[in-house]
Amino acid sequence: MAYTVVGKSINRVDAVAKVTGQAKYTGDFIERDMLVGKILRSPYAHAIVKNIDVSKARALPGVEAVLTYADVPKIKFATAGHPYALDPKHRDKEDRTILTSKARFVGDAIAAVVATDELTAAEALKLIEVEYEVLEPLLTPEAAMREGAPLIHDDCERNILSSYGYEIGAIEEAFQEADYIFEDELETSIVQHCQLENHVSCAYVDSDGRIVIVTSTQIPHIVRRIVGQALGIPWGRVRVIKPCVGGGFGSKQDVCLEPLTALMTLAVGGRPVRLELSREECMIDTRTRHAIKYKIKTGVSKDGKLIGMHIAAISNTGAYASHGHSIAMAGGTKFRILYPMKALKYEPLTVYTNLPVAGAMRGYGSPQITFAVESHLENIARKLGIDPIEFRKKNLVNVGYVDPLNGNTVRSCGIRECIEKGKELIKWDEKKARYKNQAGTKRRGLGMACFSYASGTHPVGLEMAGARIVLNQDGSVQLQIGATEIGQGSDTVFAQMVAEVLGIPVDMVHVISTQDTDITPFDTGAYASRQTYITGMAVAKAALEVKEKILDFVWGMTDIPAHALDIKEQNIVYKHSGEVVMPLAEVALHTYYDTVFARPITSDTSNNARINAFVFGVTFAEVEVDLKTGKIEVLEIYNVHDSGKIINPQLAEGQVHGGVGMGIGYALAEQMLFDEKTGKPLNNNLLDYKMPTIMDIPDIGVAFVETFEPTSPFGCKALGEPPTIPVAPAIRNAVLDATGVAFNRLPMNPQRVFEKFKEAGLI
Amino acid sequence: MAYTVVGKSINRVDAVAKVTGQAKYTGDFIERDMLVGKILRSPYAHAIVKNIDVSKARALPGVEAVLTYADVPKIKFATAGHPYALDPKHRDKEDRTILTSKARFVGDAIAAVVATDELTAAEALKLIEVEYEVLEPLLTPEAAMREGAPLIHDDCERNILSSYGYEIGAIEEAFQEADYIFEDELETSIVQHCQLENHVSCAYVDSDGRIVIVTSTQIPHIVRRIVGQALGIPWGRVRVIKPCVGGGFGSKQDVCLEPLTALMTLAVGGRPVRLELSREECMIDTRTRHAIKYKIKTGVSKDGKLIGMHIAAISNTGAYASHGHSIAMAGGTKFRILYPMKALKYEPLTVYTNLPVAGAMRGYGSPQITFAVESHLENIARKLGIDPIEFRKKNLVNVGYVDPLNGNTVRSCGIRECIEKGKELIKWDEKKARYKNQAGTKRRGLGMACFSYASGTHPVGLEMAGARIVLNQDGSVQLQIGATEIGQGSDTVFAQMVAEVLGIPVDMVHVISTQDTDITPFDTGAYASRQTYITGMAVAKAALEVKEKILDFVWGMTDIPAHALDIKEQNIVYKHSGEVVMPLAEVALHTYYDTVFARPITSDTSNNARINAFVFGVTFAEVEVDLKTGKIEVLEIYNVHDSGKIINPQLAEGQVHGGVGMGIGYALAEQMLFDEKTGKPLNNNLLDYKMPTIMDIPDIGVAFVETFEPTSPFGCKALGEPPTIPVAPAIRNAVLDATGVAFNRLPMNPQRVFEKFKEAGLI
Repeated sequence: MAYTVVGKSINRVDAVAKVTGQAKYTGDFIERDMLVGKILRSPYAHAIVKNIDVSKARALPGVEAVLTYADVPKIKFATAGHPYALDPKHRDKEDRTILTSKARFVGDAIAAVVATDELTAAEALKLIEVEYEVLEPLLTPEAAMREGAPLIHDDCERNILSSYGYEIGAIEEAFQEADYIFEDELETSIVQHCQLENHVSCAYVDSDGRIVIVTSTQIPHIVRRIVGQALGIPWGRVRVIKPCVGGGFGSKQDVCLEPLTALMTLAVGGRPVRLELSREECMIDTRTRHAIKYKIKTGVSKDGKLIGMHIAAISNTGAYASHGHSIAMAGGTKFRILYPMKALKYEPLTVYTNLPVAGAMRGYGSPQITFAVESHLENIARKLGIDPIEFRKKNLVNVGYVDPLNGNTVRSCGIRECIEKGKELIKWDEKKARYKNQAGTKRRGLGMACFSYASGTHPVGLEMAGARIVLNQDGSVQLQIGATEIGQGSDTVFAQMVAEVLGIPVDMVHVISTQDTDITPFDTGAYASRQTYITGMAVAKAALEVKEKILDFVWGMTDIPAHALDIKEQNIVYKHSGEVVMPLAEVALHTYYDTVFARPITSDTSNNARINAFVFGVTFAEVEVDLKTGKIEVLEIYNVHDSGKIINPQLAEGQVHGGVGMGIGYALAEQMLFDEKTGKPLNNNLLDYKMPTIMDIPDIGVAFVETFEPTSPFGCKALGEPPTIPVAPAIRNAVLDATGVAFNRLPMNPQRVFEKFKEAGLI
Repeated sequence: MAYTVVGKSINRVDAVAKVTGQAKYTGDFIERDMLVGKILRSPYAHAIVKNIDVSKARALPGVEAVLTYADVPKIKFATAGHPYALDPKHRDKEDRTILTSKARFVGDAIAAVVATDELTAAEALKLIEVEYEVLEPLLTPEAAMREGAPLIHDDCERNILSSYGYEIGAIEEAFQEADYIFEDELETSIVQHCQLENHVSCAYVDSDGRIVIVTSTQIPHIVRRIVGQALGIPWGRVRVIKPCVGGGFGSKQDVCLEPLTALMTLAVGGRPVRLELSREECMIDTRTRHAIKYKIKTGVSKDGKLIGMHIAAISNTGAYASHGHSIAMAGGTKFRILYPMKALKYEPLTVYTNLPVAGAMRGYGSPQITFAVESHLENIARKLGIDPIEFRKKNLVNVGYVDPLNGNTVRSCGIRECIEKGKELIKWDEKKARYKNQAGTKRRGLGMACFSYASGTHPVGLEMAGARIVLNQDGSVQLQIGATEIGQGSDTVFAQMVAEVLGIPVDMVHVISTQDTDITPFDTGAYASRQTYITGMAVAKAALEVKEKILDFVWGMTDIPAHALDIKEQNIVYKHSGEVVMPLAEVALHTYYDTVFARPITSDTSNNARINAFVFGVTFAEVEVDLKTGKIEVLEIYNVHDSGKIINPQLAEGQVHGGVGMGIGYALAEQMLFDEKTGKPLNNNLLDYKMPTIMDIPDIGVAFVETFEPTSPFGCKALGEPPTIPVAPAIRNAVLDATGVAFNRLPMNPQRVFEKFKEAGLI
């Protein structure tokens, strides 16, 4: 399909604003005499508050309010950023109150203060006297599931949030049919999003008595609903405004601060309050990525076909449900399309522990299961003596495949082309030959891993998006969307889509980037890599509606039927010849000012997308392992994606760069550590928590295989989360290739590498 | 018609915001390091700038920009707040540039500075050296029209802006047919709006390169267009935001500051600039009300029927056109429906003079002509010895009358009932008898005057209004309108309309009071008393659309046809029985979250109203005149209005109070004075310009005759401007009744009263 603006690497529409500092973030929301909120956190991982005395704190000059469990609505609510489900059975577990009388992890919010300034608020926290009854901290799923372990939530059996899974085909029959059976145990660690902008929100009560919340969130419309639920007030009494956001990665697909911030302003007569977490607080009391342990058993035929797979998973969700079992289920659902097999049994357990709460994080369960499965398949290939790429290719999905459980259909699939391109880019065959017989303490190796993912959550979740377009007198437009720009570039691709449909340059599309739940079309928000695909449909629908109205108006003006017309380069033209009929701006003027026929053109539409599109891709990595020091260096790395048509190649490349960087950290360094006895966080700061820096990241190679996804108006599919998914197993497989050592646990940091190499006799 | 919310005196929706100071005005728009703009004004009424040296001003530390005529676009533009006309012949006279090289009144803007603070800006103005060639100032229409007078605008003949008028029937024939002919000369003075909030606007350039203007205006969408025109840029590159406004009265139905403010920010690289006028500047360089001189000649039959009237008018429009001839024409059009007669000839001349610019002011030409005609009719009645009320009643219009020139039709008319009610209220007959033979130096008298007016500008102007409604999950809604709340209470009546249609309480209608041309539905703004009637249609249309969508959705949920359903008290009910089908909130939830059928309900609509509705009313006044001191005291005053159905009686009463107060000032005190030789303003401040204070205003009696106007969805008609229209002639007629002295000139201030009484031999 020939596009004019779609597919071009135009600059971000917010480039100037962000480079010059004009962009306004939640932290730039300043009201006169804004108060400061702060949270008193539990020093114990598991403890009951026996007594709490806030009298000294309340008496401190400058303290405007002190809140404890006694002051919060006794309403349990769920914080996960999911669309509301009409069916109560499909709702997230409601296991929180705004403050708690029982600490469930070190850092749990016990009390809060509102004061005139930071220092007073901090001082007031120190004056709150809490008497705890300390309980046994349950710091691993095994400990939590132990017979007789104390319950973290009273209404849960054995601290298990859910054990819901699925079975496709008959797994035991499949194993009997198989020629070989392979088993592996693999494990990922707890990591943190570490987005640039910490969590922050401000709230005040407007003169209407409504609560207004300005907040750094991926999901303003969901925040509105959850604040309403948490406070037990009608949702229309809450207004949420989302300014620019400095990154989220899923951490802000959760309602972490807003209910408390709302309660704080209510406690001070509606005066504005800001609640901002420090990095240290963010790392323990927002969300983490679930650590998951897998036991995988796989049956393979002689000719290398996967016959059946049984995956048992134990997912550590920490102290509260948040996205909880959805993560285990989403991961366990999206990966399975890649290698269809006769039988697949998935048995996940999501377990409460007395650790920080795990929630959504880029990939939403897929980085974990993809690490496990792609490592396991690599192990199998090696054991079978088959080339791991050939092994995968034997089993890959084809267009037309329908997921047997949810009906999602593969309508576009470029995974084979992705693999070929990746092989070429990294010079697979040449290097494979070259590294065949390495000696010495520095060994090089090649690895790859594939993934499949989806574009949004259908049919699990509602996929609603809205867009409103206003045509100006000069033919330019404003675009309002409920979908959120959080740094990923969605505003830019939406602007390109509108420009494409309306035949105008991108700089005539003014995107209203701030979401305001009062007036912004409803959209569930930025998650599940859904916006370009799902919101893109609503944006296209709105733009097509505007175009139709414009051409109908021209029909009225000229008697040339609308279907004979098109819009090109700001002109109304004959479709058949391209001859100009009149400038778009002239029509626009008439829509405003024709005394008989004027009717300013807008569209205000929504799209309930009951469809999904699979995306695929692969990472190829080359590593050099220093056997002496245990250092793993990624020499070259290439991600090749089938995300359908790429709307903006340069932005897409940036998205991949970020995802690969995050994947390298996941593979080699990142892990949140806790004291094994007390559950106290050991590295909740950016000094001790080892994120990769620019020095740790090689030049990242990116390529796209542009299939055309027919369910998307522009052929596009998801790209937000995918780049990070296959990175860790590809590096792990490269390390295996280089050293023969199979790491089945993340991260492969120097300490663990040293232990494993010693075990393997390499050092 | 039985209404639930319409017709009730609910509190203003912005009451709390305004009482507590939470409401944000343009002055509350604060950006860090906001620069200050100031204007250098001509000390001469008529002069050419021969030379201007800004080098010293530019060199002053803290001065960021100095602008003169050399720096402004050489584009002439019109400032009147009229909708754009596609037909160039219907556009306002384009006779301005943003700064001028020829001063046309004392105060004309010659240069401007932008500086870091007020004091520096003021200092910089003093450093600008201007060499003028002083021309003869033309300070009266007579002087300006004098043969050989210098031209104020080069492209105008004899300083006449326009002489367009009309003739209905054949006036000379009518005079021949008449039994009596009467003639009068009457005159009004220049007055000023004196709204609470001075003119102020702020501007900056956003990161998109667009000019954003925050301004105190009645007409944000028109400001956008005129700034685009004045700067010669596409209108879509301008965004106008209107916060709360502290009154306008027509003064802000004009684009006074915004083009210059926009130019100022462009001159400083897009940094924010505020331009705020002092009261003294407002009074000379925003707008005034046209002083108009009338010569009226009227033919009357023996039985007291008006046969024909000839009105010649000379309207002093000051230095620039602004609303210019529209004022003379609007006044000359709206009054004529009241007393239909065989022949009516209207010959207005609108004349440029070297005085401040006259523009729109409450009543838009009607206070002037109503003073003239209602005084003239009173004179005739007295001369004929007919009771002045009976004389008027003989000639009043009836339902069904069609204006012969514009086709506007009288579909509701309560003027007779208004007169009866007014007579009763003031105890007309009883007091008339009592005051028959007064002696002494204090004399009491009764007077009355009628008026007719219209609801909007159709068919002269485009009457476009837009409204958008968003249904929330709890059944509450947001309402966005392009119509502007400027203190008159329009937001409240719109909220009542929406609540009425949707069957919800008013506090569930959240009105977005700030207009933002980027996203606010198009509406031409607050003027011509159009909003309740014209915008009300769009609001009703939007609410009906939402209701229809809700009931259709229920149809889909329940199989009960939409036409069998209604919404009452937040419930979907059977229309025939009132039985509750389900709560509105339940439907609303399904519109958001039904995984199959969800589609959030909004309406985004506009209405091009090609219709008008006449309003009528009367003032009855009782005065006591102190013959010795010349003091005229208004003892009692009653306004009775036919404005159709009153949406909010208490707000309507407030509107009348304000209008009557303004009318009393117009009658007795207010007048802008200028040095007769130089044209220098003598009283452009609130000490020397005599507005009535609360001590000068008696308790004001208000009553309504609620006819039902069928063209309005709620039976309502205009009320904004009307209350001020008939006040001055009613007081003038009461003074005539008390003293026998006929004042044919406004204001009747002590100095003029003294002169006239002396002339009449009373003192």
